[in-house]
Amino acid sequence: MSTEKPISIDRVKSYLLGLQENICSALELEDGQAEFIEDQWQRADEADQPGEMSGGGGRSRVMRQGQVFEQAGVNFSHVHGSQLPPSATAARPELAGRSFQALGVSLVIHPRNPHIPTSHANVRFLSAEKPGEAPIWWFGGGYDLTPYYPVLDDVVAWHETARNACLPFGEEVYPRYKDWCDRYFFLKHRNETRGVGGLFFDDLNEWGFGRCFDFQQAVGNSYIDAYLPIVQRRKHTEWTEAQRQFQLYRRGRYVEFNLVYDRGTLFGLQSGGRTESILMSLPPLARWEYDYHPEPGSQEAKLYDHFLKPQDWLGVESGNR
Amino acid sequence: MSTEKPISIDRVKSYLLGLQENICSALELEDGQAEFIEDQWQRADEADQPGEMSGGGGRSRVMRQGQVFEQAGVNFSHVHGSQLPPSATAARPELAGRSFQALGVSLVIHPRNPHIPTSHANVRFLSAEKPGEAPIWWFGGGYDLTPYYPVLDDVVAWHETARNACLPFGEEVYPRYKDWCDRYFFLKHRNETRGVGGLFFDDLNEWGFGRCFDFQQAVGNSYIDAYLPIVQRRKHTEWTEAQRQFQLYRRGRYVEFNLVYDRGTLFGLQSGGRTESILMSLPPLARWEYDYHPEPGSQEAKLYDHFLKPQDWLGVESGNR
Repeated sequence: MSTEKPISIDRVKSYLLGLQENICSALELEDGQAEFIEDQWQRADEADQPGEMSGGGGRSRVMRQGQVFEQAGVNFSHVHGSQLPPSATAARPELAGRSFQALGVSLVIHPRNPHIPTSHANVRFLSAEKPGEAPIWWFGGGYDLTPYYPVLDDVVAWHETARNACLPFGEEVYPRYKDWCDRYFFLKHRNETRGVGGLFFDDLNEWGFGRCFDFQQAVGNSYIDAYLPIVQRRKHTEWTEAQRQFQLYRRGRYVEFNLVYDRGTLFGLQSGGRTESILMSLPPLARWEYDYHPEPGSQEAKLYDHFLKPQDWLGVESGNR
Repeated sequence: MSTEKPISIDRVKSYLLGLQENICSALELEDGQAEFIEDQWQRADEADQPGEMSGGGGRSRVMRQGQVFEQAGVNFSHVHGSQLPPSATAARPELAGRSFQALGVSLVIHPRNPHIPTSHANVRFLSAEKPGEAPIWWFGGGYDLTPYYPVLDDVVAWHETARNACLPFGEEVYPRYKDWCDRYFFLKHRNETRGVGGLFFDDLNEWGFGRCFDFQQAVGNSYIDAYLPIVQRRKHTEWTEAQRQFQLYRRGRYVEFNLVYDRGTLFGLQSGGRTESILMSLPPLARWEYDYHPEPGSQEAKLYDHFLKPQDWLGVESGNR
């Protein structure tokens, strides 16, 4: 284990702000029509409840009604509090009573064309602090893809990019975090994955700060390489009104996941985060339909039958576990 | 306290099935076009986890694409399990390890016209059982109204009907359950009530079975008396596309409440209830819009400024508390 480099929140912050900038530029260029608007926000320091964030701020950026992207939200935030919330300390009692800083970039892209998948990415850093002691810190993050009319080549390419980002950190890294992603983005009440997965990691500090930070950057930087080629391949595919309706229906599942299961969303809402920035992940329009089932054999049925269950897309997992 | 009558689950069940029938008939008549379709469902008895329902079934009814009602879901269910879930026993340790039966009618009505409010009602009965001991039982329920373009007279009439239903059971009953409703249907992350409230009660057994059951019936029977007159007064009001968009936006709040806060929804999803019946409460179409704020002075602003905060609509509360 390496302890050579002291942690530097400033370096992480500077990386995250640059990442937000780069991702927004790439998406604007791809859209060719709409632009991001930016809101800078700050939370005043207040006498706080355990778990309430007591200060900090963020830079929220949203693009709406683009040619390609119906809505794209890309948020940076850096918040701090005098006590980690009980949800963060239940499994790690050594953190109880520590103050904390949390910073990250989180994004969700809802394209207009049902043939382009929705995607989500997040990279975050947490530091739990106590006077006179070394901070306890960790990185987390990942990205996952939610297609409506999936194309196998896209899914494989997405996972290849994810694997290539992980490979310099060890053969076992991609299978481990791919598997975690499948388990995390799972709707138990639907018995479905949210989509075709990708990467999810948390509590990462075992490689020392320098290497962990390198890994966060590898993940963050590879997101746009994983997503944009899919957007480019699918954005000219014609769609029907029925396909649009199916997309809106499946977006309902996205809402269900984010509001019922997503720990980041719930932590944010319950601890006094900025609601409008947190719920930027929700789709601009979504639909529910009682007891809907796709026609057997249809394209829609293929999504359920072949894609919404964990799979070894690259044929590499079994050998590594 | 009266103990004269033994509890009778059969009588409660028979009442609930009749209530579902009556409400569906009244709504069909009012709609004049669409009809309810019915799904009967059963859960097999299975070796169960604590908190998993192990058996039972229900009768789900849904009307869709009506003239007046875009979607109306009216569900009866009667489920049982070998152990109450931890969420039900945390605050009442005397219930731990008991088997349970839960039966109820739950409904949500999403009208098409933005001038007609959405409404919700629920009446339920729970019995926690242990061989050789008397069952511990309680009633719960209530109803609440969620207008988009509220009319004060409607809100007052809604609460008058609720108060009149409660009055035979004591002067203090309406204020107590009206207040509980305001506290329950509150979106903390929005600092808003879900709508203009109504009644909410739970853990009710203090009056003995007979009187409590009478109260459940008074609440259940008065729902349609409270709601239909409002539907009738507003259903011919013309609406604009902008008003429709505002309705869809506000329906997003309904989704947020039901998925983030509603204990019945979360208990159902987490304990293995029938997902399609539980999520029948979600609107057929909903919208989110980043950082939306109504124009100051507009009709939409009036909703936020005057209606989405707890209020003494009948001017009776302060005298009773």
